[in-house]
This record gives sequence, C-alpha cells and structure tokens, in this order.
Amino acid sequence: MKMGCSKADAEIIADVFLAAELRGLPSHGMIRIKDYYQLWKANRINVKPDLRIVHETPSTAVLDGDRAVGMVAATRSMEIAIEKASRVGTGWVSTRNSNHYGIAGFYAMMALKKDMIGLCMTNANPLVAPTFSISPMLGTNPIAVAIPAGKQPPFVADFATTPIARGKLAVAEKKGEKVPFGFVQDKEGNASDDPAILKSGGSMLTLGGDYEHGSHKGFCLSSIVDIFSAVLSGANFGPFVPPSVAYLPVLETKTGEGTGHFFGAMRIDAFQDAGVFKASMDKWIETFRNAKPAAGRKRVLVPGDPEREKEAKIRAEGISVLPAIAKEIKEIAVELGLEFSSKE
Amino acid sequence: MKMGCSKADAEIIADVFLAAELRGLPSHGMIRIKDYYQLWKANRINVKPDLRIVHETPSTAVLDGDRAVGMVAATRSMEIAIEKASRVGTGWVSTRNSNHYGIAGFYAMMALKKDMIGLCMTNANPLVAPTFSISPMLGTNPIAVAIPAGKQPPFVADFATTPIARGKLAVAEKKGEKVPFGFVQDKEGNASDDPAILKSGGSMLTLGGDYEHGSHKGFCLSSIVDIFSAVLSGANFGPFVPPSVAYLPVLETKTGEGTGHFFGAMRIDAFQDAGVFKASMDKWIETFRNAKPAAGRKRVLVPGDPEREKEAKIRAEGISVLPAIAKEIKEIAVELGLEFSSKE
Repeated sequence: MKMGCSKADAEIIADVFLAAELRGLPSHGMIRIKDYYQLWKANRINVKPDLRIVHETPSTAVLDGDRAVGMVAATRSMEIAIEKASRVGTGWVSTRNSNHYGIAGFYAMMALKKDMIGLCMTNANPLVAPTFSISPMLGTNPIAVAIPAGKQPPFVADFATTPIARGKLAVAEKKGEKVPFGFVQDKEGNASDDPAILKSGGSMLTLGGDYEHGSHKGFCLSSIVDIFSAVLSGANFGPFVPPSVAYLPVLETKTGEGTGHFFGAMRIDAFQDAGVFKASMDKWIETFRNAKPAAGRKRVLVPGDPEREKEAKIRAEGISVLPAIAKEIKEIAVELGLEFSSKE
Repeated sequence: MKMGCSKADAEIIADVFLAAELRGLPSHGMIRIKDYYQLWKANRINVKPDLRIVHETPSTAVLDGDRAVGMVAATRSMEIAIEKASRVGTGWVSTRNSNHYGIAGFYAMMALKKDMIGLCMTNANPLVAPTFSISPMLGTNPIAVAIPAGKQPPFVADFATTPIARGKLAVAEKKGEKVPFGFVQDKEGNASDDPAILKSGGSMLTLGGDYEHGSHKGFCLSSIVDIFSAVLSGANFGPFVPPSVAYLPVLETKTGEGTGHFFGAMRIDAFQDAGVFKASMDKWIETFRNAKPAAGRKRVLVPGDPEREKEAKIRAEGISVLPAIAKEIKEIAVELGLEFSSKE
C-alpha cells in the first residue's frame, strides 16, 4: 500500500507470497519482494492498473493487465474464468501485459472452492533451450491443475516444464556441488553438470532432459504454455518475454505486451453430478496412494501431497525467513517509511 | 463394412489408420487391424454403436460411446467440441465407454480446418508406474495439441507422457538391444536397461524417467490425462482401463465404462482476430525454427515438423507394409470373404 497499491490488491499480493511460503516454495515467496520492489521503482510495474477485458465470448476472454503486479492481473483473470464457467460450463482467459505472478498453483486452486477444476499456466523469461538448440528461448513455463475431491484433499499438480526449477541450480552452485546430467547444457549444447553454466552461455533443458529421454516432449509442453499464454493474448512470446528482475534491461524487441498467462475453469457438474465425481476422485486418489512402493520408498505421493504435508508442518512451526531476506525486506520497509518488526 | 460398420464409420476408421501410416507412426496404423478385428470377434467392440450425449452445458458434454471403435466415438466427440466452440468460443467433451482410437493428433487436427485450436487426450491400458511405485497403473496417456498458423504449417504436438512409446521397447527387444536407463524399471523398482522387463513384472516410467529428473512431473501429466478422460466422463481410470487387445482378459474390477478420452476446441477468434493470431503464430514458428542448433545438430524442429516431413516422403514413396502385417490383413480378408490384392 505504501507503494501505491489498493488495499485489495496488496492483500492479493501478500496472499500469494504467503501461499508460496506455506506450501514450501520459498523460491516464489518473500525472496521475490525485492525484485518486485525494484521493478516498481524502475517504473516497470503499474500499481494502479486499469484491468480491461479486450475481447470475449461466453466462454473466453483476453485480459489486458496494464502492467499490473502479476498476482493482481492473474487473480482477476481467474475470477473471470470462474464467472464464465459458472454460466456456460467452462471459462478460459488469456492474459497479456502482466508480470511475474508467483506460484501458478494459487490461481488453479481458486477454482476448488467453486467445485471447479482450475488450470493455470504462464510464460516466463527465457532460460531454456528447445531440443537440438543452444538458444535460451523459453521460460520454465509452469502448468498447474487443481481438481476437487470429496473426503480426500484435492489433486493439485503445479510443475515447471523443466526437470528442475531455476532455484535448484542456484542452491547447488552455492554449495559448490555438481548437478546430474540432463538439467543444463553448455554454450555449444554439450551435456553439462555445472550448475553455474548459465553464466557462460549455457542453457536449461526441457522436461525429459535429452532427446533420447523425450526432451522434445518437454519442449512441446513448454511451447504450448507459451502459445496459450502469449500468442492467444498478445503478450511477448518465447525469447521476448521481459525479465522479471530490474537488474536485467528491458528487451529491445517486443512481440506483444508484457508477460502472458493462461487460465481455465471447468465446472465439474458441467460433466457429471458433482457428488459422483468427487466420490470417483476419492477412489482415484486412494487407488494411486495405495500403489506398491518401489524398493527403498515408503509410499506413493499423489500430486498435492508434498505441498500439503509441508504446509501442515510450516503452519505448525512458522515460516522461517533467511537473514539475508529479512534484511532486504527491512531495507525496503525503511525506504518506504514502514514499521518493521522481526524476532531475531 | 463386412464386420457390420456403416460406410461412414468404416471410412473414419480407415482415415485414422491411414493418417498414422502417413505421419510415420505405423505402431498406430495397420499393425492394429488384427487387434481391432479380434476385439470385435470377442464381442468387446460394438460396430453399431448408439453414441449418446449423456450430460451437457453450452461449452461441455459427456459422450457415451456405447463400446464403439475408438475412432468412431472420438470423431463424434471432437465434432461436438467444435460445434460448441463455434457457438460459445470453446467446447470440451469427455468420452466414456470407448476403445483404442489410434493417434490422438488426428482429432486435435480436426480443429485446424475451422480456425480452432484442437486438444485431445486418452487414457490407455496400464503399463506405467507412478513415481516411487512398482505398480503399472497408467497408460502411455498421450496429449495432442494442434494450433493453426498462417503461411507456416500448423503447430502439432502429439506425444505420450512417457519418455518413449511402448513400441520402441518391442523394437529394441527384437533387435536384442538394451535401452537407455530411464525408460523402464524392474519389478522391485530398480533402474533397468532391459526392454523385455515388462514381461517379468517391470514397468515403464513416466516422462522425466527418474525422480531426480522430474518423473513426478510426467506422473502429474499422465494423471491429468487419466482424470480428464475417465473421472470426468465415467470411464475406467488408471489400472482399470480395459486392454486394447483380445488376448488379454477383460478385467474383473470396473470403475466405469470402457476407455476414456478428452477433447477440446478453442476458436482462435474467441481470443483474438484470427488473422492477427495466425501472423503471430507464423512469427513464433519462424523464431523457434531459427534457434541456433546445438553442436552436431542441423536445425531445430518445431512440433509437427517431423511428422509433416515423414508424410511428404511417404506420400511420394508409398506406405510400406511389413510382410507379417500384410499376411495378417490377408487372413482377416479371407475370413470375412473380402477380395485382397497386394503387390508382392
């Protein structure tokens, strides 16, 4: 709010940051506050956006985010998808002129309360090379799908279309460790186990890792995310997606406006009685959770289980904040004239 | 038609088989004719189905396939998705009580002629173990997405949610070759390079291969295909999907009716002027096709390029039929009292 956001928008942004911390995904939580703050200072984020539907049908819309904080454009987009689904069964929104929006799963999960399946994707700044290429042209372009169940907790898949998240390379680099082959390649396209290789012209690989193991399928997935998020909406695609940090310059070439996202909501009773569907989902979840574990594995996890278990633990124990991040937030608070208290 | 199919249905089935052969995917072409024939003889396929919409909204439907040949139920389902999209922007159909339907890409590509994005998924008989498990509970569950372009040929992704297709294991086995680690595991869940391991209790792995390389993401994808195809429609899910060959018995436990599919159609002008969209897709395709090749690679392929190039070659040179398959088809022809001519 000190940056000029409305109370409602500030609450949305805080909710999404908190959800990332609670679900055990700190790479999308408080560590990003400084990036957002600096983007705002560089006038690359608009805290008083005029969100506009620029095109629509009964089941679709394109939203122009007016350079909003990603969370603000994304929440409104998902609300529109849900409204459309409540009327005609499903709703699909492609969003342009937005920014980094935190965890994709947050928006997909908005559908759950309405007995709908939620879907969310976003493109992101390019770090990932297509199969057979050395040009970083795609983001880690995540896909999130949330599906309601009955007695069981919901099915929630939320994953980057790369073998690992960008943050895991940074962690390995800090620890001085190598990473397994299949995550990154060097500037010539040779297999590499160096987590710092991106700094010397290397690139990340798509899900599958190498061609032999199906990296072209990861490339397909990442491309679909990019096209649904950016070509459908008129955002920047592929290598033209703007950086989500202020220390990287604005790109010279634009193919659209800002970052793009894609949202979907499907009412479960648009396909089947909601009670029957939820009972079947319970059975699906129980069947898969009871799959026989492999040697040395305790049990099989259903998508959503790991984050749910982390959330239970973190809610009990509290969110731990790294000193470096607490320091960053404190500095921002001082600059903005905010009171800041932390247990130290 | 000799088996009792209408002329229209027989033409659909032949079209899909031919499309597989032309696109260089013979594993889904004539090699399957014997399987379908034997399923029909065993009364596990209904050649005179009564396809019924059992639930619908303006943008959704559930189709009951009445045990139809998969191609027949799938084509009708995709037609319904396209009809709904033409009215309200998008159409989504989940299909139960169907059978093996050939290549997913065929149905996704039906949308292209209408200036729509097409999407198609299907579940399949279980060969693939969830991450951390040794139970084969999922099929190779493919995803196909077809996106129209302007001057460029369309973007067509059509891929199993496993590193490789089942057929590639059979080929390696016949050649007496090992396969790379990351495709299959043994009955205890240990990494294996034996392509015949499925016969001794092994299972295939999901896209990503092992957990370290993101197999849980492949598991998410395969699960989403299964749930959209079967839980939404009321088909059998996961380990309960019926076999697509007659030499495997009907399963004792059912969780629904037959095999399940999922279809989507999105009108591109439900999001943006179709001309603008197609020009952007041309630019997207050209951008990615011009990515810098890695060392030892000639060029970058855009999804759809490999099959399109194979099709051009096969259309010029003709479809080659393996003698064993020609023999199978000839035997069926004799049994049905059909004339059969082949150049030998």
